[in-house]
Amino acid sequence: MLHAVIMAGGSGTRFWPASRREMPKQLLPIGGAEPLLVRTLGRLRPWIPPERTWIVTTERLVPAVRGMVPEIPGANVLGEPVGRDTAACAGFAAVRLLADDPEAVCLVLPADHVIGDGAAFRSAMEAGAAHVERHGGLLTFGVRPTRPETGYGYLRPGPVAARAGGYAVHRLERFIEKPDVDTARRYLAEGGYLWNSGMFAWRAAELLAEIRRQLPGLAEGLEAIAASLGTPSEAETIARVYPSLPRTSVDFGIMEGAELAWCIPVEFPWSDVGSWQAAWEVAPRDADGNALQGRVVALDSKGVMAVSTPGGPTIVVAGVEDLVVVATGDAVLVVPRDRAQLVRDVVKALEKDGRSDLL
Amino acid sequence: MLHAVIMAGGSGTRFWPASRREMPKQLLPIGGAEPLLVRTLGRLRPWIPPERTWIVTTERLVPAVRGMVPEIPGANVLGEPVGRDTAACAGFAAVRLLADDPEAVCLVLPADHVIGDGAAFRSAMEAGAAHVERHGGLLTFGVRPTRPETGYGYLRPGPVAARAGGYAVHRLERFIEKPDVDTARRYLAEGGYLWNSGMFAWRAAELLAEIRRQLPGLAEGLEAIAASLGTPSEAETIARVYPSLPRTSVDFGIMEGAELAWCIPVEFPWSDVGSWQAAWEVAPRDADGNALQGRVVALDSKGVMAVSTPGGPTIVVAGVEDLVVVATGDAVLVVPRDRAQLVRDVVKALEKDGRSDLL
Repeated sequence: MLHAVIMAGGSGTRFWPASRREMPKQLLPIGGAEPLLVRTLGRLRPWIPPERTWIVTTERLVPAVRGMVPEIPGANVLGEPVGRDTAACAGFAAVRLLADDPEAVCLVLPADHVIGDGAAFRSAMEAGAAHVERHGGLLTFGVRPTRPETGYGYLRPGPVAARAGGYAVHRLERFIEKPDVDTARRYLAEGGYLWNSGMFAWRAAELLAEIRRQLPGLAEGLEAIAASLGTPSEAETIARVYPSLPRTSVDFGIMEGAELAWCIPVEFPWSDVGSWQAAWEVAPRDADGNALQGRVVALDSKGVMAVSTPGGPTIVVAGVEDLVVVATGDAVLVVPRDRAQLVRDVVKALEKDGRSDLL
Repeated sequence: MLHAVIMAGGSGTRFWPASRREMPKQLLPIGGAEPLLVRTLGRLRPWIPPERTWIVTTERLVPAVRGMVPEIPGANVLGEPVGRDTAACAGFAAVRLLADDPEAVCLVLPADHVIGDGAAFRSAMEAGAAHVERHGGLLTFGVRPTRPETGYGYLRPGPVAARAGGYAVHRLERFIEKPDVDTARRYLAEGGYLWNSGMFAWRAAELLAEIRRQLPGLAEGLEAIAASLGTPSEAETIARVYPSLPRTSVDFGIMEGAELAWCIPVEFPWSDVGSWQAAWEVAPRDADGNALQGRVVALDSKGVMAVSTPGGPTIVVAGVEDLVVVATGDAVLVVPRDRAQLVRDVVKALEKDGRSDLL
């Protein structure tokens, strides 16, 4: 059966002050009316039912996540005691899935991306799932670049090896870390490079086999967890084992060395919304190019991303351009849109100032 | 005896969101640590004692004012049921003063100005007071312009007629409404024009005589109030009479037509701080030209005026220049410093939107 595994463990600081330790990006309505996690789940309806939808998140966020998506069975929301990157996350979900469904095929999807065309997304995902169900191997989706983006990792597809549901399925050649702008321009000009979307498809059993082969330390930990599932020692085992799991990504830790790795190029509008600037790009905007969320009044202003979170103050922007203004009950951020990456420095400065009350 | 009359009736909207109906500019710490009213009173110590210091303010602000300046006897804080411009305000204070001191000489001073040199201010005020005590007449102080300011009214002094405490005392020729920028430039180039400071000196009895001569309607109302002072009908009389007083300024309603009007040019640093831009100009600034009040963190920012009022959120500005950011518990304003006059439009827009909760 086809399952969806939503990786919702991030605790990003790039959307401060809206994002907090207890309110990470995926729980926020970035660039839309509903939280990213809710929109991510919405894209799976009706083709993947709630009982085959799994969410892996930070343990302390489990109650908030369960409250936010009550249609998902509570037991399908898995808590990681600590984050150990995506390889551990995907492996944890796989061992849990296999306990229910030894034949499970999984789509593994980040909770915090914005995707523009639900139908195109669905057909690509179904093609990827059908391909791995038939041919095995681990499959990733690569987004056709539309600009020389330096904020994404890239991947290099090899030759076309098959077709699935109208999509070309390539062998996967390699993953590439975020490039500098000259390299990104070259990738765009040359073609043959894709943005690394962080979305995957595989049989759960096959993922675990690759983990066993390439990451024996991770495999050992996951096997201990698998053995404890449904026993009285489950929680204790997870709490004990998880922190010792090796910290590595699916991309570089598993897929790049996999015996059989695939890649499907996709073209639906996609953003990992990594900054307020990116949020502005994907958000609905008025005739002046302003993206306004919550109680915001804009006078004679253009290109503004302004967000007042629930319970936050009314924001009034007047006579400004290309600015990000975000207000919560206890903090206000003002930064130029094209320098939104300064938020990381802001968070560091607040940490240094002992203002953890704001983080 | 010399008295000070502080005109504290303004209910400006130019410092929104810090200023509100119940919290006008003069009660705010604009451009400094203490409220403007407190700093205005501080300039009078120790040469005018609290019992000869009078404050005229809006009736509903009387409790707040009394609480803010507890050293002033409560009875010296006079409440106007409605604002009727400065002629009524000065006349009201005069009738009240005369009940205590028939020989009263008054300095009449706005509560909401910033003055840079306390000693120079005091010597000019004492010179003006001494002059009217000796020679009679109504006297105003004019500030020597340092730039072609279009935000101030001007006054035109006539020939020097006397000297007082080292100051030239001119006959006053006329008052001039706020000029356009070309005219303001000409005034600056020609010399012989002064900024209208709105500060005056006169014997209380003489002010009332001029009111009687030029503004019989105002005189009649003030006489009714005078007759009621100290009687059981005082409050009722003020409440009834005040709204019927003619609305005119001391400048154009009384001084311009006065039989004997003087003007002393002064040179102390002076600002009526009519905008957030002006507040920035008079405020202490850091090495990057930022004026930060309350909980504010500035990263890589220049020329910023940022104010978080008590109980307001922490403001973080990052990578911005020449911006005004003001935050209270319920509202945030972001406007370019050189367009701070947009605040008036903001207030109008909020009124129109029915957001009187924010006004």
